[in-house]
Amino acid sequence: MLNRVRSAVAHLVSPGGAPHARPKSPELPAETTAPPAAVAEAPRSPSARTTSGSGAPAKTGETRASFSRPTFLQLSPGGLRRADDHAGRAVQSPPDTGRRLPWSTGYAEVINAGKSRHNEDQACCEVVYVEGRRSLAGVPKEPRRGQGLCFYYWGLFDGHAGGGAAEMASRLLHRHIREQLKDLVEILQDPSPPPLCLSSTPGTPASCDPAQLVAPQSCCSPQKEVTHESLVVGAIENAFQLMDEQMARERHGHQVEGGCCALVAVYLLGKVYVANAGDSRAIIVRNGEILPMSREFTPETERRRLQLLGFLKPELLGSEFTHLEFPRRVQPKELGQRMLYRDQNMTGWAYKKIELEDLRFPLVCGEGKKARVMATIGVTRGLGDHNLKVCSSTLPIKPFLSCFPVQVYDLTQYEHCPDDVLILGTDGLWDVTNDREVAATVDKVLSAYEPNDPSRYTALAQALVLGARGTPRDRGWRLPNNKLGSGDDISVFVIPLGGPGSYS
Amino acid sequence: MLNRVRSAVAHLVSPGGAPHARPKSPELPAETTAPPAAVAEAPRSPSARTTSGSGAPAKTGETRASFSRPTFLQLSPGGLRRADDHAGRAVQSPPDTGRRLPWSTGYAEVINAGKSRHNEDQACCEVVYVEGRRSLAGVPKEPRRGQGLCFYYWGLFDGHAGGGAAEMASRLLHRHIREQLKDLVEILQDPSPPPLCLSSTPGTPASCDPAQLVAPQSCCSPQKEVTHESLVVGAIENAFQLMDEQMARERHGHQVEGGCCALVAVYLLGKVYVANAGDSRAIIVRNGEILPMSREFTPETERRRLQLLGFLKPELLGSEFTHLEFPRRVQPKELGQRMLYRDQNMTGWAYKKIELEDLRFPLVCGEGKKARVMATIGVTRGLGDHNLKVCSSTLPIKPFLSCFPVQVYDLTQYEHCPDDVLILGTDGLWDVTNDREVAATVDKVLSAYEPNDPSRYTALAQALVLGARGTPRDRGWRLPNNKLGSGDDISVFVIPLGGPGSYS
Repeated sequence: MLNRVRSAVAHLVSPGGAPHARPKSPELPAETTAPPAAVAEAPRSPSARTTSGSGAPAKTGETRASFSRPTFLQLSPGGLRRADDHAGRAVQSPPDTGRRLPWSTGYAEVINAGKSRHNEDQACCEVVYVEGRRSLAGVPKEPRRGQGLCFYYWGLFDGHAGGGAAEMASRLLHRHIREQLKDLVEILQDPSPPPLCLSSTPGTPASCDPAQLVAPQSCCSPQKEVTHESLVVGAIENAFQLMDEQMARERHGHQVEGGCCALVAVYLLGKVYVANAGDSRAIIVRNGEILPMSREFTPETERRRLQLLGFLKPELLGSEFTHLEFPRRVQPKELGQRMLYRDQNMTGWAYKKIELEDLRFPLVCGEGKKARVMATIGVTRGLGDHNLKVCSSTLPIKPFLSCFPVQVYDLTQYEHCPDDVLILGTDGLWDVTNDREVAATVDKVLSAYEPNDPSRYTALAQALVLGARGTPRDRGWRLPNNKLGSGDDISVFVIPLGGPGSYS
Repeated sequence: MLNRVRSAVAHLVSPGGAPHARPKSPELPAETTAPPAAVAEAPRSPSARTTSGSGAPAKTGETRASFSRPTFLQLSPGGLRRADDHAGRAVQSPPDTGRRLPWSTGYAEVINAGKSRHNEDQACCEVVYVEGRRSLAGVPKEPRRGQGLCFYYWGLFDGHAGGGAAEMASRLLHRHIREQLKDLVEILQDPSPPPLCLSSTPGTPASCDPAQLVAPQSCCSPQKEVTHESLVVGAIENAFQLMDEQMARERHGHQVEGGCCALVAVYLLGKVYVANAGDSRAIIVRNGEILPMSREFTPETERRRLQLLGFLKPELLGSEFTHLEFPRRVQPKELGQRMLYRDQNMTGWAYKKIELEDLRFPLVCGEGKKARVMATIGVTRGLGDHNLKVCSSTLPIKPFLSCFPVQVYDLTQYEHCPDDVLILGTDGLWDVTNDREVAATVDKVLSAYEPNDPSRYTALAQALVLGARGTPRDRGWRLPNNKLGSGDDISVFVIPLGGPGSYS
């Protein structure tokens, strides 16, 4: 995904973001997550382990300049070197002999063809236990075992301008989600509607006991119904935001270079939540039918949001950019002529007389994979990028990057068969294939395996990665139709919707 | 639609809008459109004809305080009184004996059950001829007859807080569209891609002759392909904006009270363009299948856009509103407790500790038909409302109201039968029925008429209006299922997709 960022000049400046209404990040537990099994030192910038800066509660725990692959690949140092080989581009999956991924998940990845030094994709697949918070008012925790919740978690992180942000997110984002869910452990397990207000008086050890909550029916003013599902969506949304804020705080100490797209699936209490910030993609293939589970966020799909922001906050554009879009760059000799344009309100085009400020570079330009914000970045949502500046300028890009929506899929509403799967893939997959072709591969590969063969989902993930990578020929990596294969990092999760119990 | 606006305190203030990139409104021709056939003086505020203010190019031509119904209804003074009768609520359609509406269009309307003094819906159905502009550089026009374009035009305007805006829009919006299309007359008739830049040198009588245009292929920089269709979309979008700006300019002289939703269909060169600002709705019923042709814009569907604007421009909220949403109004005694909230980034809900500024009134509150922006207005897109203020406040609402998208339907891509129709209806229709029920009525009514009977579309429009109005019973207007009928103004166009030529 490096070529999506033309410039990532990492000036060390303070973040320019506006204040957030979001609640403060609760302190993440001090214990570190299991360190990646295979970590190689990158030769460029070995840095000492650093402590968190002031106001930085979470411990990242690792040296950020190291290169690593997901723990679950169980790579030896030699295996890690092979995974890092741009020439061979061997497809990596968890070993058949080792512990399988949770939920019988299939996974495969391959490094890029040389566009960046290392594989800048990262992945995480975990079962996470959430202990309820005994108190909601800040008094010490007294965990009550056995009343917690478990969620399954899959994350794909596609880094750009360095692998640091993707690596950090792969280690920490699920812990932010766990923190956000802690307040909800009892509420989510209570079938009655969630309380709108929690009656925790500061200084008093209030309890999350439903009997002590202000129940909705006790309020006299009209009120909205809030579902359990929307609380989980809110928790994931806030976790993304807090992950991003942690990257902003710790970027000096930990060299969290660049940024990353994040595509996450969470299974909790019968439902799958898919959250996407960036241009990775999730689809469900169910009985041959395709259900999109994410939308891509690019300068083209988000043009009007970006233009509106530039229009409302012209200081973000400096004197270098215009929020208007033109079908091509305006030339000085065209001053006074009439050119097609569109603004933040328009989906169509109209002619306008070219004025001096129209000669500025457009905030959004280019088409397809070449579309860019401020001539710099090709995705408009993601984590990190706090240091990203416009090339040869001090203008920050970050204010234009945003968060993400969550889509929910209710697993209990449909009788799933073993061939129904949720596919998560980075853009390395989707750049050279489409939903329909992926669905055809799902059918072809899974039908070649017994329904209870646990290796079938890894085989499918490998087939998808191989199909997008192609084979080396005279002129680069080629697909069977002789078109160019993806030269990008490619990572794929295959999650069987029949659930983890059906397979052994 | 009056009850959508809790307060329309019409302070005479200057508009607070930010500068627009939009091109200046070309001067609309001085000739007035045909005045409404039936105009009754409203007793409240007869005003003298006023001239346009400085910078106000278009002539509205009419006294604004008068009450009128669409010209094509051909109402006599007696007929006008009957159309204005809240007790009888007689359904109005163009007379069978008179000139039929263009394109064999069906139309029916009925006045509200007493919620406002007059019917605040307005309608327009016209065939509009567009003469090309000989010059694009401001030199005098030399019309070349026979090279122009015709478009068919249907508009429904649902007024609120007075009928002035709807009445003005029904007379002038299609003229703004015509003005915007004038530059495109030759371009749209030339099958080659539209020129990105028009080489009109100021001071030189440049021509729109395609040979003199800078053709796209002559430019070396990468460029976007712009379709003819997107030029028409841009023209309609700009026409809406210019109509709104004209209302802002002329609201003092012409008593353009309130605002209006606008739903417009334009047929041009084989395609139907549907533009919607507000909560009217358009659907196509084709071979029994329903194709939505518009989206509704309400505080609920536009919550995040509104919240983002309040977040980025807090001065628009004064000290009275918060951009955060809560499921119910926060009470002072709940300070320090934790309540569910969501901000401009969230689709889900999360708990936050209540702080002092959370006690402010939420920018967006309520649900369904009771949802409001700043406790005042229930639609978020439309024309007018330049004087609308928050109740008992000087805060303007207008900055939160926005324009609209255009959807395009290609008539040539499908062999339409006489039963395929495009339905335009104000919210008086849709409040008590849905797409499926409307499609059932389409089937039932049209199958009772011969396919070449020109009165079938008016009969269908009448059936839809009657079905939404219901019949008077002991306790108000009731539907056959005894539910309340719509007490709102109801207006419906039925446009046969087979085109105007099939029927005589």
